[in-house]
Amino acid sequence: MAALGEFGLIAALSRWLPPGSRTLVGIGDDAAVLAAPDGRVVASTDFLLEGRHFRREWSSAADVGRKAAARSLIDVAAMGAVPTGLLVALAAPPGLPVDWARGLAEGLAAECARAGASVVGGDTSRADAIVLVTTVLGDLAGRAPVLRSGAAPGNLVAVTGRLGHAAAGLALLEAGHTGNPLTAAQRHPEPPYDAGPQAADLGATAMIDISDGLLADLGHIASASGVRIDLSSARLAPGDDLLAAALHLDRTDSGSTLRPTDPLAWVLAGGEDHALAATFRPGTALPPRWTVIGEVLQGQGVLVDGQPWTGSAGWDHFSAGSRGADPRTPRKGVSG
Amino acid sequence: MAALGEFGLIAALSRWLPPGSRTLVGIGDDAAVLAAPDGRVVASTDFLLEGRHFRREWSSAADVGRKAAARSLIDVAAMGAVPTGLLVALAAPPGLPVDWARGLAEGLAAECARAGASVVGGDTSRADAIVLVTTVLGDLAGRAPVLRSGAAPGNLVAVTGRLGHAAAGLALLEAGHTGNPLTAAQRHPEPPYDAGPQAADLGATAMIDISDGLLADLGHIASASGVRIDLSSARLAPGDDLLAAALHLDRTDSGSTLRPTDPLAWVLAGGEDHALAATFRPGTALPPRWTVIGEVLQGQGVLVDGQPWTGSAGWDHFSAGSRGADPRTPRKGVSG
Repeated sequence: MAALGEFGLIAALSRWLPPGSRTLVGIGDDAAVLAAPDGRVVASTDFLLEGRHFRREWSSAADVGRKAAARSLIDVAAMGAVPTGLLVALAAPPGLPVDWARGLAEGLAAECARAGASVVGGDTSRADAIVLVTTVLGDLAGRAPVLRSGAAPGNLVAVTGRLGHAAAGLALLEAGHTGNPLTAAQRHPEPPYDAGPQAADLGATAMIDISDGLLADLGHIASASGVRIDLSSARLAPGDDLLAAALHLDRTDSGSTLRPTDPLAWVLAGGEDHALAATFRPGTALPPRWTVIGEVLQGQGVLVDGQPWTGSAGWDHFSAGSRGADPRTPRKGVSG
Repeated sequence: MAALGEFGLIAALSRWLPPGSRTLVGIGDDAAVLAAPDGRVVASTDFLLEGRHFRREWSSAADVGRKAAARSLIDVAAMGAVPTGLLVALAAPPGLPVDWARGLAEGLAAECARAGASVVGGDTSRADAIVLVTTVLGDLAGRAPVLRSGAAPGNLVAVTGRLGHAAAGLALLEAGHTGNPLTAAQRHPEPPYDAGPQAADLGATAMIDISDGLLADLGHIASASGVRIDLSSARLAPGDDLLAAALHLDRTDSGSTLRPTDPLAWVLAGGEDHALAATFRPGTALPPRWTVIGEVLQGQGVLVDGQPWTGSAGWDHFSAGSRGADPRTPRKGVSG
């Protein structure tokens, strides 16, 4: 990239990142201008750090671009909005191959296209490791935003999208198994973008995307809404792919692990699949893509079959070193 | 910060960062929701990296917050828009004092308030050095965006805001002089936010904020507009403060520098003051804050008194190591 220079890189990126139908001013001016027909704009920003959220030896540049975009795009979907644009800040070592930057741009563009959005702007700088910060913008198209705070006792809890696949993929990668399809789920999630506005149209009372783990993220809804959430483990039974991955890991384990792998832990505490979880009023006719997994009760906290779940429950960036002191033992993230 | 944890940090930040009048959903949900009454949203994203754009021994946390916000806020002003909201991604070492994060938040909030905006959301993560990425949103209030590409032969070139102060301040800091008022200009710029919409209302044909240096940034206008810009050095004469700083540096220099300090180089090539430069049709009645510094001609490039300027001309992040090969010798940035 040193050969291209900053302005050459920006020029190249603008060629690799086609403008979308809502892009009024794209890459290359002081700022982008994007249509916001609703009169409100939904916005969220996310880190994707080399060594923490991805490793270049496990993920292609396109994988990293898709993952960076996906993490952000689903955040506006989780408000009931349609993603419209993405801004990308990229800091990289000068020795990073230009092909890598091109692959990144292609991954960003591809994932934006899946969500109906496009890359509209960004910034570049130099750093020792790759730093990506993606900021997504979205349009509510007249919908009320679906917050975390609207769940009420009696509501149903439902999810759509994959649960535990990225965590299982990470466990497989860490054990040296690269061929399993679940490892692709770790490298690039496939969030159900259109399910966000769909849930809003169905009257969802609260919604969140599962980035830190189902229990941890439903905990945010429980806390913000002042309610208890009780999940049914029977509705969360790991699928054959997760069961097979757990068996495979146990069979090929060198013997250092005392306990067998629990695939339910991937479902309950694995993040990074970016499924959507929402609460709905009882009697809501949910399309088949939504699976009811529990109910909202009076009280606080998140239970499984009426009991606190005693495994790991999410990820706290600043406490990752203090496994003894913090009950949230990190289970996700490539640096965990 | 490790003691607070990520969620504790976000909760603390939301207390330190008051919502603005346009904030419909602020910090703490999946995404923010901000009023965008124009039906279009202006957006830009910027890095501020420890060691590259600031040093903790030179700048307080509040300085860093003000600088991070200022760099972004002026980008939407340079489109003719009013800044409305800021998203802040902060990665920091776990050992960073909570007081530093609080000072940062106060600086961000103070600079946003100067511009009429507020912090609406963000993300946190862990990194070895502090990484800040700010994304600004703005509203055009019915104005056409002022691009870099609209300058035409016969137009006047005018600036408002400080030129060369941050570069002089950096030279003073590097030489160990911390007391000079110019060092404050390095630590926190004071961009003329309201001059951006004002210029748009005056019919500005092109506009840019001076982040990389006057010659470099006017070069972007010349290139995008397909014109030549000729500046008058008499209109750019360094003020007494810059002259005094240059004299002071030469007098206290240990003897390693062969050439005397040229304060005009600070004015022409120093960045980070975030002044605004714009082109206007001849005969435009400019308010006194705008200083005419040159004119737009047919041709290409940026000249000073009809000649190419032979000093340094801006900053290219990815070529910073190749001083011999690239004519743009880096002059700004604390890591230069």
